[in-house]
Amino acid sequence: MAQLELALEHIDAQLRAYIEELKEWVRMPSISAGAQEDCCEALARAADFAVAQCEGIGLRARKVQVSPDTNPLVVACSASFAAGRPTVLIYGHYDVQGVDNPRSAWTNDPFGAAERDGYLLGRGASDNKGPCFAHLKAAQALHATGGLPVNLVMLIEGEEECGSRALSQFIAGGGLDEFGPIRGVVISDTSMYGPDRPSLTLGLRGILFFQMTVHGPKQDVHSGLFGGTIHNPNHLLVRALAALHDVEGRVRVPGFYDQVQPLSRREKTFYDALEVDEAAYCRNLGVKGLTGEPGYSLLERRWTRPTLAINHLSGGSPRTVIPARAAAVISCRLVPDQQPEPIETALQQYLRDQLPAGTEVEFGNSHHSPAYHLDPDHPLVPRALQAIRTGFGLEPLLTREGGSIPIVTQLHQRTGAPVLLVGLGQITDNWHGPDEHFNLRDFHRGIRTSAALLCALAEV
Amino acid sequence: MAQLELALEHIDAQLRAYIEELKEWVRMPSISAGAQEDCCEALARAADFAVAQCEGIGLRARKVQVSPDTNPLVVACSASFAAGRPTVLIYGHYDVQGVDNPRSAWTNDPFGAAERDGYLLGRGASDNKGPCFAHLKAAQALHATGGLPVNLVMLIEGEEECGSRALSQFIAGGGLDEFGPIRGVVISDTSMYGPDRPSLTLGLRGILFFQMTVHGPKQDVHSGLFGGTIHNPNHLLVRALAALHDVEGRVRVPGFYDQVQPLSRREKTFYDALEVDEAAYCRNLGVKGLTGEPGYSLLERRWTRPTLAINHLSGGSPRTVIPARAAAVISCRLVPDQQPEPIETALQQYLRDQLPAGTEVEFGNSHHSPAYHLDPDHPLVPRALQAIRTGFGLEPLLTREGGSIPIVTQLHQRTGAPVLLVGLGQITDNWHGPDEHFNLRDFHRGIRTSAALLCALAEV
Repeated sequence: MAQLELALEHIDAQLRAYIEELKEWVRMPSISAGAQEDCCEALARAADFAVAQCEGIGLRARKVQVSPDTNPLVVACSASFAAGRPTVLIYGHYDVQGVDNPRSAWTNDPFGAAERDGYLLGRGASDNKGPCFAHLKAAQALHATGGLPVNLVMLIEGEEECGSRALSQFIAGGGLDEFGPIRGVVISDTSMYGPDRPSLTLGLRGILFFQMTVHGPKQDVHSGLFGGTIHNPNHLLVRALAALHDVEGRVRVPGFYDQVQPLSRREKTFYDALEVDEAAYCRNLGVKGLTGEPGYSLLERRWTRPTLAINHLSGGSPRTVIPARAAAVISCRLVPDQQPEPIETALQQYLRDQLPAGTEVEFGNSHHSPAYHLDPDHPLVPRALQAIRTGFGLEPLLTREGGSIPIVTQLHQRTGAPVLLVGLGQITDNWHGPDEHFNLRDFHRGIRTSAALLCALAEV
Repeated sequence: MAQLELALEHIDAQLRAYIEELKEWVRMPSISAGAQEDCCEALARAADFAVAQCEGIGLRARKVQVSPDTNPLVVACSASFAAGRPTVLIYGHYDVQGVDNPRSAWTNDPFGAAERDGYLLGRGASDNKGPCFAHLKAAQALHATGGLPVNLVMLIEGEEECGSRALSQFIAGGGLDEFGPIRGVVISDTSMYGPDRPSLTLGLRGILFFQMTVHGPKQDVHSGLFGGTIHNPNHLLVRALAALHDVEGRVRVPGFYDQVQPLSRREKTFYDALEVDEAAYCRNLGVKGLTGEPGYSLLERRWTRPTLAINHLSGGSPRTVIPARAAAVISCRLVPDQQPEPIETALQQYLRDQLPAGTEVEFGNSHHSPAYHLDPDHPLVPRALQAIRTGFGLEPLLTREGGSIPIVTQLHQRTGAPVLLVGLGQITDNWHGPDEHFNLRDFHRGIRTSAALLCALAEV
């Protein structure tokens, strides 16, 4: 533990310098989602910044151009892999969401990296440059105070906000094989349970996403001249979609819940013990009340139960037409043991079954990823909790999250290693929204946590 | 009848000149729907053209600026009203639809006014400059061959494609009162039953139009983080909308059909006798088959039965969101005796009733107009039929149409006069679509019909 103490002192002393460095990174408009052309240069600069940071820790770093139209993937690893020393993989991303959501809703420059009241303001500050940088600085502190205690692999991608295509191809193509067995994967791309409520996230829901299109006449036609004599795709679509849920919110698709296992008593105990401020939750969302699948708590609904949502509806135009087509985007959040493929098949068949014979229906833009779940009895869980305790000086919680990070599932499946999800941001940090911000106190405590975790993972 | 014969000869001799004049009008891009600023000048020119045409018949014509933001309304009338001579009102419009539907789908210049294979090509050729011009030329021919046999009022508006606001205000404000009693209103803004199938249209359906918005969280929120715990406006909207029709297509709103009278045996006989090519109808629309309210023929469904259509669906975005709101545009086609107001009330209440208590629902953008219907036993009907017979040399049909022209209802209600709907275009002329066109043979026969009709209406 002597090295960790030195490293923590180093971190405390260097914090101000770290923050100034992080601001440089946040100032780069490395937008990957709905990117304009002029973001290419910023994406390249943000990747170069990550390469330079990795090199500063003595890592061998490179930008990998997986295919001509993907953003560079930063891959870095210890210059030499010491035998008998475990290998740890840390993942983060340097790309950020756009800022037109809408741009006028921002009260500060999204790429100004201003500091106010202990927060760093700017797109990417919390998602994910700040948390990713915490790991880089922890590694640097260890590097500066005796060397890294583990073989380190850093994967910092530039497409998290637009599908992780390059990284996914890199992993699927065996890009990780050269690093040998991985003891643990560390990711800070989830959230803390709340302010001063650091947590280890045991699970993420999977996702199943597709678009459904119902076709009608060859073009939009006049509802007065032709309405009432041909099928209206809007009518067929709403009929099919309305059959997806019962009036209490349960999904009616046969087999949808078949593979869902009941939550273990152990995990249920953790989650039941978490404080939930339903009034604040409603206030934050601007809703008058809550709803959801009967028989489950708010957290169970968000974290442990599968859902089906109609995310997008489109059809026709606000004039008197019978439209040529109507479409919906549908997505499910899946829980452990649910396999996406059979659910997709059952769901699309069920939707077809609601429509008259001969209706032309098309399903497209499909993608899916199973849930990720870490057994709370896994031996690395207590080490991760101890690291959080050391870094934050607070008792960590065990949680899950309702969102999906397909790359987490893929990293887990490919390496067989547990993925330790140590969120440093807050659910209220406005990821993807205007005025994104990141608590610099959590940046500090996050660097400390990462240093402690790397030391903990080094122990055999 | 001597004058009519002279006028018909005059028309036949002048046809080529009439066509060249019409081309001038069609070349003016007098777009009123979704108009760009540079259409103002073209709208003004098209109105001036109409004024000049009216003056050429010896009418007193003026452009009326009903309010500062409306397009000029052309109002013209006989310089002196002869006592004991009936007054006839002819309505048309000089404004046209836009051409971005899409622009690339046009195979000719929308404002080139090219002539090909007996058709005049261009936006507005059939809707409504060509048919409107047929009446102007008929009046001119009568003016040139002994004078107009009736007191004539011409109303040529510039906002038919965007709501007829100025004309509606003009009529509601008593603008027609100075003309005294009107014997008949003549309008050619409907269609013939088919090629070489001239018809008198006995009815138009009314319309009820509104938008429904269901509100949810204050902004689009992440479906993984918040889905399954709050109401999804898309789900609520499709639930409400799916309840509007039964599986066979009948409207389920209580009272919707209460005021609908059965079609008279007389009219049913007319419509049952009309030939219907269902295969061509399907081919034209690009659908595999027909559907609709059980127990009614295709023409009854289109012309005599009320319908309810969901014209537009919108909600959320094609990403994993729970949307802040979801909206639908709903419109009904109403038949004679259906009053829009109670139906609107019942329909909106029914939609509310499908939603959980406390759901925030908003109805807006509402407008409506009752159906128009002319009794086939009205004494002017045989005169109109005879005029069509004279003009076309073909036996006319009695029909209805499924569309709605609110200004027709308003003109009828205000003047108490029958509106004689003598369509000169075809349903296949691509009104509002690309490559609009107008059969010049029907232009010719239309001018002749109009001259015959004015003479017929002059008879006491």
